[in-house]
Amino acid sequence: MSRDFQRALVAEFLGTAALLMIVVGSGLMADQLFTATSEVVTGLQNGLKLLANSMATGAGLFVLIQSLAPISGAHFNPLVSALALWNKQITLRRFFGNLMAQFSGAVSGVAITHLMFARPWLEASSRSRSSPGLWISECVASAGLLAVITLNASKSLAAQAGNIALWITAAYWFTASTSFANPAVTLARSFTESFTGIAGSDVAGFCFAQLSGLLIVLGVLKWLRAAPQSRSDESSQSLK
Amino acid sequence: MSRDFQRALVAEFLGTAALLMIVVGSGLMADQLFTATSEVVTGLQNGLKLLANSMATGAGLFVLIQSLAPISGAHFNPLVSALALWNKQITLRRFFGNLMAQFSGAVSGVAITHLMFARPWLEASSRSRSSPGLWISECVASAGLLAVITLNASKSLAAQAGNIALWITAAYWFTASTSFANPAVTLARSFTESFTGIAGSDVAGFCFAQLSGLLIVLGVLKWLRAAPQSRSDESSQSLK
Amino acid sequence: MSRDFQRALVAEFLGTAALLMIVVGSGLMADQLFTATSEVVTGLQNGLKLLANSMATGAGLFVLIQSLAPISGAHFNPLVSALALWNKQITLRRFFGNLMAQFSGAVSGVAITHLMFARPWLEASSRSRSSPGLWISECVASAGLLAVITLNASKSLAAQAGNIALWITAAYWFTASTSFANPAVTLARSFTESFTGIAGSDVAGFCFAQLSGLLIVLGVLKWLRAAPQSRSDESSQSLK
Amino acid sequence: MSRDFQRALVAEFLGTAALLMIVVGSGLMADQLFTATSEVVTGLQNGLKLLANSMATGAGLFVLIQSLAPISGAHFNPLVSALALWNKQITLRRFFGNLMAQFSGAVSGVAITHLMFARPWLEASSRSRSSPGLWISECVASAGLLAVITLNASKSLAAQAGNIALWITAAYWFTASTSFANPAVTLARSFTESFTGIAGSDVAGFCFAQLSGLLIVLGVLKWLRAAPQSRSDESSQSLK
Repeated sequence: MSRDFQRALVAEFLGTAALLMIVVGSGLMADQLFTATSEVVTGLQNGLKLLANSMATGAGLFVLIQSLAPISGAHFNPLVSALALWNKQITLRRFFGNLMAQFSGAVSGVAITHLMFARPWLEASSRSRSSPGLWISECVASAGLLAVITLNASKSLAAQAGNIALWITAAYWFTASTSFANPAVTLARSFTESFTGIAGSDVAGFCFAQLSGLLIVLGVLKWLRAAPQSRSDESSQSLK
Repeated sequence: MSRDFQRALVAEFLGTAALLMIVVGSGLMADQLFTATSEVVTGLQNGLKLLANSMATGAGLFVLIQSLAPISGAHFNPLVSALALWNKQITLRRFFGNLMAQFSGAVSGVAITHLMFARPWLEASSRSRSSPGLWISECVASAGLLAVITLNASKSLAAQAGNIALWITAAYWFTASTSFANPAVTLARSFTESFTGIAGSDVAGFCFAQLSGLLIVLGVLKWLRAAPQSRSDESSQSLK
Repeated sequence: MSRDFQRALVAEFLGTAALLMIVVGSGLMADQLFTATSEVVTGLQNGLKLLANSMATGAGLFVLIQSLAPISGAHFNPLVSALALWNKQITLRRFFGNLMAQFSGAVSGVAITHLMFARPWLEASSRSRSSPGLWISECVASAGLLAVITLNASKSLAAQAGNIALWITAAYWFTASTSFANPAVTLARSFTESFTGIAGSDVAGFCFAQLSGLLIVLGVLKWLRAAPQSRSDESSQSLK
Repeated sequence: MSRDFQRALVAEFLGTAALLMIVVGSGLMADQLFTATSEVVTGLQNGLKLLANSMATGAGLFVLIQSLAPISGAHFNPLVSALALWNKQITLRRFFGNLMAQFSGAVSGVAITHLMFARPWLEASSRSRSSPGLWISECVASAGLLAVITLNASKSLAAQAGNIALWITAAYWFTASTSFANPAVTLARSFTESFTGIAGSDVAGFCFAQLSGLLIVLGVLKWLRAAPQSRSDESSQSLK
């Protein structure tokens, strides 16, 4: 195992851990600060929690991508690594390495966050997230994320990081599921009993929906590449 | 119909659909999370909904423009396509193609959003938006949007996308109508009975106001171009 | 009067009008949406109004500067024109032209905003803003704004616009006066009886404080330029 | 003492003072605007205060770094100066000069802020911040900040400023301690009896935790540099 390979896996592990710290930590902080002392307030605090959570996630994700992309590509997401594998940008061996780094990093990130917020290392979430609307949302969110990555692949690192981060911030609001769009994140969030949690029994449904979004994007890409005609205009950057 | 032409129309369709998902979806999420359980809270929730809605729309619109501008110009708006036609940047045939893609995409976007949020495909909005102040607002918002597009036309794609997205985020707040500024968006929003809806009977008034904003901008541009003197300093980018 | 001179004054007029639309309009929208129906809620709505107001102002100001700087320098502020005059970037004639365009544009912007929100063209504000703390705040805010402009003068237009806009967004929160920092804006805001208003009798105090901030910056610049030693390192852009 | 040396210390003094004005001032404004008139509201106001505080801090910090980095490197933080010393980017003499400028600037910034908000120059905070979770948070926040600085050191000034500012905005939310991550800021915040204060007796604990974060980063850097293999790929900027 070459040193670059090792370094990439360490970057994926740390980056995914940091991503979970940002997502789950800002949710825990919101839980702590927006507390209902009466029924009257309950009708406002959930929206305020999502406002804080979506803002913190977008800001933090932007920084993580910029900081670690030169080392590992900053996938932090099995769907993104699968897309990279399909695009022949990484090897199968690297793909499986990434998966292990991402899943273990995600769960570690939740544990460190719980340590900061003085909770048990890992908890079982009881928050139910299971309905056709939520599954459609996860499919749409995942396909959208992979489309954004694909359409901006030739732009500068700052533009790529900005587009991905702002897309996630928006998708927290415009999908009914608050846009997990990441199997490693989904699994790890089943270990926190807080605003960002998901019941363990609902993880599989979310992951299947996310994989269906991946398959849609791969299918569209396959169809586009099969087309004989040149698409050299794609790289033109004017808005005319 | 050439393949590039087809691809541009598909991009306009998908981009406008995604725009409506972002606008209507974030409004539905806000409706869901900021719920009044007492009269006391009603006085806060509408502002919080607009805060979330304006933030999500700005973030998402930035990504959509950056992602699809290389393919179709990322108009997503009949007013913008009309300006491009007037500037001879697109053909009349492409203009009508764009209109069809934008209107059908916008309504499809509302339908997909309703699917995610477990509602009927389309609903009839009962939200009244009809008054001289609102029509003036739509005229100002549309003229402002087209002026921003024109004044930044020679900048980088990132700068164009940033200026348009931030302008819309601000205009959600500083116009009394929350700045629809887009006939396709206006029509599509008549099909959702939620925060971002508009009663079907009020659509025409909004669209006329938006067209008046377009005419003002076209008139000013005509007058400027008729002037004989050179304006080569326009492209200078210093703030001195 | 040359055409470029005319165009610059029109740009200053329209830009300052648009700035007031953004500031006063987002304040009116916040007034409309964050309404107290009970004493309980009063304790939250003023902060939420400032959150919306500061976000909209920062976003809109960024766009206005980027859009109009190539034509007029995008001053929109007598203090900024005074600094430019002192730096010999504009003539005395242009300076007085700017002043007239800025003051008349600012008041016109308030009138258009009131039209959108179905209010009288102009109102007399009764909102008292007069205390030593507020004057110190205006002095700090004005000196800070001019320092930011000076320190970033050699950067790209986007960087200049971003720094000025984000500075104002932050200064809305960290100064006790919510950082008017602009005599034209101050005068115009005395004509709106709403969140962003200021009583006519308090305008002079604010303007004197703003001028004192200008004098401090001019004094520091004079002292720096009098120093004999070279400061060529100033233009280096590394963070080391 | 050369003129450049003097100018760097003045920049560190003024920049750190401005940073504290932003942090403490936006906290005081939030205290003033989000006031509890009933127990019901208490459960929302603390979160809203942090929303305003984190947004203002991120915006202001971005501007300060961009504006002053060409003069002093824009450290504003003893941990950052220590990292620069360890990286041989500054001399030991400059390091101690920076420390004095940063600590005196930070306390001065609190005093000016109190002047603006009509409070005593300095107050003793009674806000207790002392628990293992908070110390772990400060260690994580400090190590994270220094890692972000290190990983982005070869990027443009705008990218560096953006990454640092957005990281802090996110870290306000995802760490349990709201991410002080700066001994000079920590000491100075013990002099304000408001939202952003910290009891004087808890300052040492926070500073020790911050230093432990610094040591972790220095240890990792030492280990990385000891490794024999080339890491030339680190500077590649693609997301593949």
